[in-house]
Amino acid sequence: MGSDPNIDKLMAEFREGGVRALAKTISMVENGQAGFEEILSLLHPAVGSAHRIGITGPPGVGKSTLVQGLARHYRESDNTVAVVAVDPTSPFTGGALLGDRIRMESIALDDGVFMRSMATRGASGGLAITTREVCDVLDAFGFDRILIETVGTGQSELAITGTADTTVLVLVPESGDGVQVLKAGVMEIADVYVVNKSDRPGADHLMREIQDMLAIRAEAPGLPHQATGDNWNPPVIRTVAIEGEGVGELADTLEQHATAMRTSGALDRRRSERLRKHTREVVNRFLERHIWQVSNGQQRLEDGLTRVSSGEMSPYQLAEEIVDAALRARGS
Amino acid sequence: MGSDPNIDKLMAEFREGGVRALAKTISMVENGQAGFEEILSLLHPAVGSAHRIGITGPPGVGKSTLVQGLARHYRESDNTVAVVAVDPTSPFTGGALLGDRIRMESIALDDGVFMRSMATRGASGGLAITTREVCDVLDAFGFDRILIETVGTGQSELAITGTADTTVLVLVPESGDGVQVLKAGVMEIADVYVVNKSDRPGADHLMREIQDMLAIRAEAPGLPHQATGDNWNPPVIRTVAIEGEGVGELADTLEQHATAMRTSGALDRRRSERLRKHTREVVNRFLERHIWQVSNGQQRLEDGLTRVSSGEMSPYQLAEEIVDAALRARGS
Repeated sequence: MGSDPNIDKLMAEFREGGVRALAKTISMVENGQAGFEEILSLLHPAVGSAHRIGITGPPGVGKSTLVQGLARHYRESDNTVAVVAVDPTSPFTGGALLGDRIRMESIALDDGVFMRSMATRGASGGLAITTREVCDVLDAFGFDRILIETVGTGQSELAITGTADTTVLVLVPESGDGVQVLKAGVMEIADVYVVNKSDRPGADHLMREIQDMLAIRAEAPGLPHQATGDNWNPPVIRTVAIEGEGVGELADTLEQHATAMRTSGALDRRRSERLRKHTREVVNRFLERHIWQVSNGQQRLEDGLTRVSSGEMSPYQLAEEIVDAALRARGS
Repeated sequence: MGSDPNIDKLMAEFREGGVRALAKTISMVENGQAGFEEILSLLHPAVGSAHRIGITGPPGVGKSTLVQGLARHYRESDNTVAVVAVDPTSPFTGGALLGDRIRMESIALDDGVFMRSMATRGASGGLAITTREVCDVLDAFGFDRILIETVGTGQSELAITGTADTTVLVLVPESGDGVQVLKAGVMEIADVYVVNKSDRPGADHLMREIQDMLAIRAEAPGLPHQATGDNWNPPVIRTVAIEGEGVGELADTLEQHATAMRTSGALDRRRSERLRKHTREVVNRFLERHIWQVSNGQQRLEDGLTRVSSGEMSPYQLAEEIVDAALRARGS
């Protein structure tokens, strides 16, 4: 990697705490602009102090309100906060049409809170890796807490949640039967459960349902939770986020989880697993760029597809051809 | 690709219509067993006659009942049917714990219906490509209709739905407000809408909501629907699947969609787009196999991660090293 004077300048401003340099760096990472991997490489040594907290749950349970409450709480205790909001489920331009909430691109609520909404990108894998890299940038910038808010509970959301140190699943009494309906994966992955809008009927019932599920989980072998050996019993917290009720308790619980993870060594294990996975994905991204852009794979694909259509070859034979050509043309 | 006598034997049985050979072929594809791409390559010329119908929607709307109804309907008109049930949202072993329905691996309801439940695999991208390949196998075997049932409406489900010629979104009156909550992507992608359990209160309201959404969609530029230029106005069908009501009408509508797509050329365009995407993914899969298995990338990654941990290099520098080494070792 050479030394690009523009990147040097951007990094100098970034290191002095320039919010514009931060926003610009995030945009470069998000859009995969030339040089973004060099920047991430330069920032890497500064990554690792932030506590990354993933907040997930079905639509409409009050995640945003909870995130705002947490951010306010952290500011009161003089911690800086970044919020990354990610919505992986809306792949088309029509999103806004149907009343998708609109967020400002970057809002600095006050000097210590930075908000960023992640534009939806093509691949769900791509969104998870990019979220992780945006969090790396925020971490290197010096934020104490990074809140990653995802909408929904599908597999792409799980992948994004996988970028966090601590995962919070938010439910509401109305999702009651939802615990059955919610797929197992998402119920099992959380470190902390929140019953929000807990002043509504059904809150006690939902608390019990979650606790029953956790009791079963405690006995089940081989879940990711056990794998990290963190010996943490996921608590269930009641909140009424809109009134600020329970937010302090939630924040305390999140600190306890961070401390427990640090003490037990689980944090190191999680992060090293995350680094392994991330490096694999960066390798795959390099390779795909090599094959599709550098070694002319896109053109080879278009040319070959006509031969596939005419029955001359199968798509698998074409794929082999493209790969062979790319491996021969290794001067990336 | 050489000629493996075991594969030759399997293919001979497959071409004679052996259901065991079919099940074995599907398992090989699903598990990525050695030779599966050779098989897919051999079967490729026989792919293309089946009508692939994706049935998607939130949990609990009666998709399975609807699928059974459609299968019965097709059997009565002497069409053979394969059902592929895919649940991408449950990545962990604990799935069954929380009452995830259990399906038999392969149930031949009668000679003309073949059922297959797709085991959840690691990557969501992986599940979509595998579903497409399993459908290719069923198509090559000669099934007239392939019903692809997915649970949920997240992005992974959308990716799976993308393997179909016709996509059906199933909702129920209870999902009423759900139309707002359902992410735009999934609402826009369907070719046919079904309001199931339409004898319940709220059915009329939901019908109107969907029709309003479709009216907006008809005006919106750049949606995938317009892109294929198929000039199809997505209808909304009422069903009570458990009583069989509306199932015949739904089946007729699906035929109309297939015919309209064939006439307008939209089917060819969709399929050629699908082939392009599929070939890209096969190339990426070949490459990843080359780097991680053939050229010893896994070992290089493990060795390098210790150097990353010690601060000697960044994950991006390590990734570059691994890619360079793989491109040098091109004797795959």
